[in-house]
Amino acid sequence: MKIALMMENSQAAKNAAVLNELKTVVEPMGHTAYNVGMSDEQDHHLTYIHLGIMASLLLNARAVDFVVAGCGTGQGALMSLNIHPGVVCGYCLDPSDAFLFNQINNGNALSLAFAKGYGWGAELNVRYIFEKAFTGERGQGYPLERAEPQQRNAGILNEVKAAVVKEGYLDAMRAIDQELVKTAVGGARFQACFFENCQVPEIAAYVRSLLD
Amino acid sequence: MKIALMMENSQAAKNAAVLNELKTVVEPMGHTAYNVGMSDEQDHHLTYIHLGIMASLLLNARAVDFVVAGCGTGQGALMSLNIHPGVVCGYCLDPSDAFLFNQINNGNALSLAFAKGYGWGAELNVRYIFEKAFTGERGQGYPLERAEPQQRNAGILNEVKAAVVKEGYLDAMRAIDQELVKTAVGGARFQACFFENCQVPEIAAYVRSLLD
Amino acid sequence: MKIALMMENSQAAKNAAVLNELKTVVEPMGHTAYNVGMSDEQDHHLTYIHLGIMASLLLNARAVDFVVAGCGTGQGALMSLNIHPGVVCGYCLDPSDAFLFNQINNGNALSLAFAKGYGWGAELNVRYIFEKAFTGERGQGYPLERAEPQQRNAGILNEVKAAVVKEGYLDAMRAIDQELVKTAVGGARFQACFFENCQVPEIAAYVRSLLD
Amino acid sequence: MKIALMMENSQAAKNAAVLNELKTVVEPMGHTAYNVGMSDEQDHHLTYIHLGIMASLLLNARAVDFVVAGCGTGQGALMSLNIHPGVVCGYCLDPSDAFLFNQINNGNALSLAFAKGYGWGAELNVRYIFEKAFTGERGQGYPLERAEPQQRNAGILNEVKAAVVKEGYLDAMRAIDQELVKTAVGGARFQACFFENCQVPEIAAYVRSLLD
Repeated sequence: MKIALMMENSQAAKNAAVLNELKTVVEPMGHTAYNVGMSDEQDHHLTYIHLGIMASLLLNARAVDFVVAGCGTGQGALMSLNIHPGVVCGYCLDPSDAFLFNQINNGNALSLAFAKGYGWGAELNVRYIFEKAFTGERGQGYPLERAEPQQRNAGILNEVKAAVVKEGYLDAMRAIDQELVKTAVGGARFQACFFENCQVPEIAAYVRSLLD
Repeated sequence: MKIALMMENSQAAKNAAVLNELKTVVEPMGHTAYNVGMSDEQDHHLTYIHLGIMASLLLNARAVDFVVAGCGTGQGALMSLNIHPGVVCGYCLDPSDAFLFNQINNGNALSLAFAKGYGWGAELNVRYIFEKAFTGERGQGYPLERAEPQQRNAGILNEVKAAVVKEGYLDAMRAIDQELVKTAVGGARFQACFFENCQVPEIAAYVRSLLD
Repeated sequence: MKIALMMENSQAAKNAAVLNELKTVVEPMGHTAYNVGMSDEQDHHLTYIHLGIMASLLLNARAVDFVVAGCGTGQGALMSLNIHPGVVCGYCLDPSDAFLFNQINNGNALSLAFAKGYGWGAELNVRYIFEKAFTGERGQGYPLERAEPQQRNAGILNEVKAAVVKEGYLDAMRAIDQELVKTAVGGARFQACFFENCQVPEIAAYVRSLLD
Repeated sequence: MKIALMMENSQAAKNAAVLNELKTVVEPMGHTAYNVGMSDEQDHHLTYIHLGIMASLLLNARAVDFVVAGCGTGQGALMSLNIHPGVVCGYCLDPSDAFLFNQINNGNALSLAFAKGYGWGAELNVRYIFEKAFTGERGQGYPLERAEPQQRNAGILNEVKAAVVKEGYLDAMRAIDQELVKTAVGGARFQACFFENCQVPEIAAYVRSLLD
């Protein structure tokens, strides 16, 4: 599994600690972690708006399988990611949130709060969240006997979003202020992850066109 | 302020208790609460998908000012509401979430978890959330010195969503499986709230066309 | 109601913020807040062990009616206070904890976590806890129909503790390493609160004997 | 490690589920779980007061190494256990509480909330708590550089409690209403665990004397 971690300006100072927990947990499982957002406060400046665009490009291009995002409360990143088709982002404050979201909603992104409630021992909570987010099967339902309606609703959610958004993925992307997209794709680590793993040539071409 | 409470099938049995807390808190403040979702398990059947459509219609028609939704974990309702343009829905587990979301994100909806973490005293927590969700000014920023970037990002979030979704609101609504929308608008209490307060005749006409 | 706030060395830097919330909440209710622990990191040095002794003296001397204590996780202060006869200290992480502890356990102290989970907006949570901790009647039971066994058990708890501890309160106090007690009573704000309000001359005499 | 689970009347119906999580987690680690409290609502009736006495006897007799207790909010059990010498009980709501309590306070008991906050997925949270409570070394400090003062304070806590309580352990036990102690030791599963594992003959003789 390819997992992208993306953090924005307000909590960029915590990136090293969060990345360390992510790698410590997921690398022994055979997953790969990519650190595609800000690595510290001096890094290429991103807001939660950019995180949504980055997650959208990475997931729709199948460059990564899962995105871990966040901001101060996690709410901005959560809403920003969920704007985009193909991104199904849950909110995750404790390890059981990660498990339940995997089983019930079976999404491909989580948003964490990196300031609210983030005190002593918060990196432990982050570690335990990652332990539960990246082990076991997904989409099995919780409780198990509710699997069928839960899976059906997860499918319908995607259909409703697909209906509401513009029909061509890149048409939707191009309708966004292109300065925002340019900033979103402007980081070297984002680009490395995206271009190495992108499986949709049209999306790669679009991103490349912004960088010229 | 007109506030719509909407609950779906999995937690419908808790509607009376939650509605009671909402009314107890907001009516003395001069707000009006509308109970537009399921009132018990035998009521007109709704899923979190329908809640998103209902919230979208009520908020875009300016029939209500704020929506309180939820489901078992709150995640399904959260994502379902956030699909729709004009709906800015936060996730709310404790009273300070309500305050911070108001100040930082200044949205118009909250999704609560009505099963996860919902044990003894949960109705107290719901009451305290409502106390903080519906008092005081909004959009002032938190911390206060971060108000300017937070307000700017909240505005950009709306612009990005507007760019991604179809241009005509009703075109987007009509692109959704119309059986879903019919079910969403099928409840008597929803219709009463919607038609009494709708301020956008085109949306009223659209909803009426589904009911014929 | 006289309320003593006491904080120890590891979180002393947060004292001003916590005290401000306490005063803001309780003074309009007619209560008085006393800041009897560390006011900053340079202040007279106290550990959670001292907080227990301080709470014991203040409550047994009826110098105050309620104690708000805490430490990094709140667990050390909690256990330290609960060693002492006449101190019934609950653990409080959210506003409903405060309400439930008042109704079910009807104690006279709360321990808060001032580092674990203490991030952005933590002072809001502290404020909301104080709002619920210091309003309304106490000992009414929760749920209400469980009042009778809850009140009975609260009484038995006190009897069991009274049985386990030494018979004379001051004998128990004198059995503790007196250097610990001297340090506990060594702060000027503690002494001011204690001597102004102490209603048990023997305890005042004991404390005074330590200061000579 | 021998671990005793003890639950009281208000949440006895949840005993099977909690016991199942405990066994599932700790048996593969080589620990043994004993279910010494109520197994259902019809079982020998216990309150949180009795749990404190039971934990005291089991731990002071070295019949078990660790106690998991709890009640509706966990506060009653917490205070009841902490009355007794030789019992150092923390409050545990999430997995990182278990880790931090082990590292900082290095106690021998945890109290959980089996009703407050206990909704959907609560058994997951219980499982994750047990995973962190019973793995790894203890008493290492958190953060690591604070180990020395934390270990010192944990030692002083025990000394202060030893000073405050009566000198002879059985004298303290005998000072408690003996009907309470008789009820506490009245369950068949408690007795089996206690007598099979008790390492202090005087305490065994005392318990036996109550059963004649």
